[in-house]
Amino acid sequence: MIERVKVAVVGVGNNTSALVQGIAYYQQTGSLVGISRPEIDGFGVGDIEFVAAFATSPEKIGKDLTEAIFLPPNNFPRLDCELPAAGVPVTAGLVDDSGIDRVAASLTGADVLLYSAPSGRPVTALAYAEAARRAGVAFVNTTSDAVARDPELLGRFTAAGVPLIGDDLTSQFGTSVLHDTLLRLLAERGLTLVSSYQVNLGGTEDFRNLVANPNTKKQSKLNALSTADKVEVAPLGYLPHLGSQKVAHLNLEAQGWAGTSVSLDVKLKVHDPSGAAGVNIDLIRIAANANRTGRGGYATEATTLLKSPPGTAV
Amino acid sequence: MIERVKVAVVGVGNNTSALVQGIAYYQQTGSLVGISRPEIDGFGVGDIEFVAAFATSPEKIGKDLTEAIFLPPNNFPRLDCELPAAGVPVTAGLVDDSGIDRVAASLTGADVLLYSAPSGRPVTALAYAEAARRAGVAFVNTTSDAVARDPELLGRFTAAGVPLIGDDLTSQFGTSVLHDTLLRLLAERGLTLVSSYQVNLGGTEDFRNLVANPNTKKQSKLNALSTADKVEVAPLGYLPHLGSQKVAHLNLEAQGWAGTSVSLDVKLKVHDPSGAAGVNIDLIRIAANANRTGRGGYATEATTLLKSPPGTAV
Amino acid sequence: MIERVKVAVVGVGNNTSALVQGIAYYQQTGSLVGISRPEIDGFGVGDIEFVAAFATSPEKIGKDLTEAIFLPPNNFPRLDCELPAAGVPVTAGLVDDSGIDRVAASLTGADVLLYSAPSGRPVTALAYAEAARRAGVAFVNTTSDAVARDPELLGRFTAAGVPLIGDDLTSQFGTSVLHDTLLRLLAERGLTLVSSYQVNLGGTEDFRNLVANPNTKKQSKLNALSTADKVEVAPLGYLPHLGSQKVAHLNLEAQGWAGTSVSLDVKLKVHDPSGAAGVNIDLIRIAANANRTGRGGYATEATTLLKSPPGTAV
Amino acid sequence: MIERVKVAVVGVGNNTSALVQGIAYYQQTGSLVGISRPEIDGFGVGDIEFVAAFATSPEKIGKDLTEAIFLPPNNFPRLDCELPAAGVPVTAGLVDDSGIDRVAASLTGADVLLYSAPSGRPVTALAYAEAARRAGVAFVNTTSDAVARDPELLGRFTAAGVPLIGDDLTSQFGTSVLHDTLLRLLAERGLTLVSSYQVNLGGTEDFRNLVANPNTKKQSKLNALSTADKVEVAPLGYLPHLGSQKVAHLNLEAQGWAGTSVSLDVKLKVHDPSGAAGVNIDLIRIAANANRTGRGGYATEATTLLKSPPGTAV
Repeated sequence: MIERVKVAVVGVGNNTSALVQGIAYYQQTGSLVGISRPEIDGFGVGDIEFVAAFATSPEKIGKDLTEAIFLPPNNFPRLDCELPAAGVPVTAGLVDDSGIDRVAASLTGADVLLYSAPSGRPVTALAYAEAARRAGVAFVNTTSDAVARDPELLGRFTAAGVPLIGDDLTSQFGTSVLHDTLLRLLAERGLTLVSSYQVNLGGTEDFRNLVANPNTKKQSKLNALSTADKVEVAPLGYLPHLGSQKVAHLNLEAQGWAGTSVSLDVKLKVHDPSGAAGVNIDLIRIAANANRTGRGGYATEATTLLKSPPGTAV
Repeated sequence: MIERVKVAVVGVGNNTSALVQGIAYYQQTGSLVGISRPEIDGFGVGDIEFVAAFATSPEKIGKDLTEAIFLPPNNFPRLDCELPAAGVPVTAGLVDDSGIDRVAASLTGADVLLYSAPSGRPVTALAYAEAARRAGVAFVNTTSDAVARDPELLGRFTAAGVPLIGDDLTSQFGTSVLHDTLLRLLAERGLTLVSSYQVNLGGTEDFRNLVANPNTKKQSKLNALSTADKVEVAPLGYLPHLGSQKVAHLNLEAQGWAGTSVSLDVKLKVHDPSGAAGVNIDLIRIAANANRTGRGGYATEATTLLKSPPGTAV
Repeated sequence: MIERVKVAVVGVGNNTSALVQGIAYYQQTGSLVGISRPEIDGFGVGDIEFVAAFATSPEKIGKDLTEAIFLPPNNFPRLDCELPAAGVPVTAGLVDDSGIDRVAASLTGADVLLYSAPSGRPVTALAYAEAARRAGVAFVNTTSDAVARDPELLGRFTAAGVPLIGDDLTSQFGTSVLHDTLLRLLAERGLTLVSSYQVNLGGTEDFRNLVANPNTKKQSKLNALSTADKVEVAPLGYLPHLGSQKVAHLNLEAQGWAGTSVSLDVKLKVHDPSGAAGVNIDLIRIAANANRTGRGGYATEATTLLKSPPGTAV
Repeated sequence: MIERVKVAVVGVGNNTSALVQGIAYYQQTGSLVGISRPEIDGFGVGDIEFVAAFATSPEKIGKDLTEAIFLPPNNFPRLDCELPAAGVPVTAGLVDDSGIDRVAASLTGADVLLYSAPSGRPVTALAYAEAARRAGVAFVNTTSDAVARDPELLGRFTAAGVPLIGDDLTSQFGTSVLHDTLLRLLAERGLTLVSSYQVNLGGTEDFRNLVANPNTKKQSKLNALSTADKVEVAPLGYLPHLGSQKVAHLNLEAQGWAGTSVSLDVKLKVHDPSGAAGVNIDLIRIAANANRTGRGGYATEATTLLKSPPGTAV
């Protein structure tokens, strides 16, 4: 029997809540519902255990990981499964680049450090990466901060024989993949796009932060589409009632034969943190295998799961 | 400059209306809107002219083709383009297998006979095919009647050096291709389908006929999907107000990570006859080229445009 | 404290399941969610108890009411509340007009007999009504069979001082009320309706039966609208995956100022049996009060809850 | 035969375009499509003529009114009707409170001055009102600037026997009236609202301005609803492709019997300027009648057409 992957996690938000609860769900049910890859390099979806967790919120620090994931502003729902205490108290995390050695020391025995804090704190991200490197623990950066895209840093991981995987996870299923699929389908069938829009609404803390900085996100949404030419992205809407659900409304207006109209309206409803967890479960297993088999640096099999792998623009 | 394809057409319904008007539209505008393949074997979308037309409705017989296409129950809209008289009066068509030689005689000079009558009249379909074979005119069967799937008949076309293309055209863009794309996308992303439905509503004569014979169509709708397992097809709805527009409502309910829900609702609105014309324009050009280059029998480049090419079940 | 209403029920289908479970839910939670009228004549929504139940399905007969409501083909979901055994075994019900005295005898002590069997069995409906009359128990007919509309029968109830309430309950919230509200709103604002449709999809046994007899239902759907002129009702779709949920798609196309277009698309999702229970809870209380205060015959305060009260067409 | 209402208009934007074209449409067709009140005080919808127009955009000044209404950024579509030149050149309008006498002089012979400039220029609005008062012309303020709500000003109009009608027109059909109707319907049927949202998307200059000042509009949207308690309004989206069409997505989640879910999703598509014109046609006729019958000050019959009539908060 394979030895479970030992994971330390930075950030105890909704995505971590979905990951922690979901792993318990799969361990208890043996179900494979919603799972893309039941096994990666011998690791099943339940072959994960948490060994450390870092956060900065005073309310979460000191709580067991399985308790901290339900504290506000987290609002991912409580899944219908048992959740025994992890025996992992949340530890005070880094806020800058001091304390690297303390973190490194506490990573002893871990296979992977999953960096799942909010995007936009590059100094902290790099500090955690350095801690992981020193501890010989594979580092997975799920945020849009440039870590694996830093060639100098990647070189140091490679030299140390430690995996470095990132940056920025793609959701398992979200607005971008859906919109892009529909745009491609129209093009493939010879239809001429006239106009298209997407509206994204959500109720997580993440959404609230993005609303404060809309232009970046809007551009990134357009970048995710193969044909952004006639596509408009409406401002993100932060609607607290939605909780951890995201709702997207898409419209595509096109012309077919002799200019006659083709019209598509779509509503998507999905739990954002689930989309992250469904990809993190794969990144963790890829990173663990790379680490255990001594493959330092970037693991190319992660590329389809990432928006900005090494070599893409910073 | 290439010599235009000379087309005779059987059936003067909505699909023929869309085809005739659309060709005039493309000739006048030079536009390529809604066109999948601007050129096939040197033929542009405007390089078509009609040389004969057959119908059985007394109101249509004797009228110029460009006039007959607007007679009820046809309800494809009048497009915004000039439509000069074709100089092609609609001729009394076959109702069984007598009159083959008369039809064959009137096909002189044609490249292609496009069989665009309602499905469900196999004897008549085969009679027209035989007329085409005798006249050395390529036969295109857009209906679900088994013509190109008849190995004995296909053998005779091959022996005679006359192209035979069919059966049953796929629409350029319709419910099946959209539903299938979404089902595949969910599967590809690892989501687990819980349930899905499609409802199709339309206002054409074609819809009215299908409503009278719903089970066949329902099964054919399911056959068009890669995963029909959890998919339900509601009864077709004949709603005259829709005219030649088809409306489809699709729903897909799935489970993602740890069973959390993913929900997709789609409304599609499209002109059914446009979807047929957008494919007929390609079948005609393929057939014309095969005929002019002396390739008898089936032309394999038509396969992606057909639901039931030779070799599939009758 | 008021003495609880003692209810006997005919039919142990989804509507009875919703009613029985819901009453337990309201008794336990004290909640008033989804309740139109918290109190009617002093009766709260929890002031109901079941004293007898009749059914014809062999699987249900002999089971406790709280167990029988979950047997197939019932598919109303199990609500999240305790459901202690009612101590009411399901009794073999009538299948024609024999056995009236047996039923009457078993109604001793009941205030109300709620007739909640499938529509379309008028002989049986009348037999139960007669049993109720003989036992002095108020009769509530929730089906479209003509009972309260039978003047002779109503006369006998009135003479006996026994309440008779019916026929055919209106749902608390369904397609008809929604569609009608939107049609009225457009008219009120001066818009001109061009066309409108509704599609109803459901997964209950009730839906399955209606699909077998579509024309009646279609006409009844149109009757429920103030302006049926340009409204089309698509065939009902029986989609088992929906369970006890009903989905309706509505579309309204109108013209505003100078003929410019106004377009409305609506999706409604609702539990059909909940819509029935939300009205039955009121009918029961009205009937009980009428009976206890000695008001025989029809109780006019029930009229807004019924599609076909006395005096309407049979 | 009644003497046509002579209207001067301030602002040559989309709303004026819809009004001018629509009146021509009704005059030519005799149609009453989309019309709430065919006749008001003897005036039909075609009994209007334009006698003066004021604008500040250099491109519009000097052009005939029927030409200026199609200049960018206007994007209300060209309706399918003849539009003979009005013989009314657009005149340079006011930008502050100088030039009042010049405007008053040019109003000679007019019945009504329709103030249809963008909201947010109170000084100019009041200057035009004063010009109208001096010229004895009824003033209709369709903007949200406080004019008719100014008691001192209203007093002066009353004293002068000149009508003053405002402020802020309600659209003939828009998101607010639809959302409010649905919220009321749920409440009326006893359902318990859980959450609701609305998203508004549009492509007019008006939308672009509102996006720049979102909070005011959001609050005003909430004010328009009877129950704003659980309703969230997403940020307005300026999507140029929509042109003068507005699209709104509404969602209402409620609980029915025993907390079971009721869900409503709505898409509305409507031309914003049509909604304004459909109300302006009534305001103009009310104002003309008040003026011709010597009723100075506010005309109470306008109240249902206004968001902020006299006496409401400024």
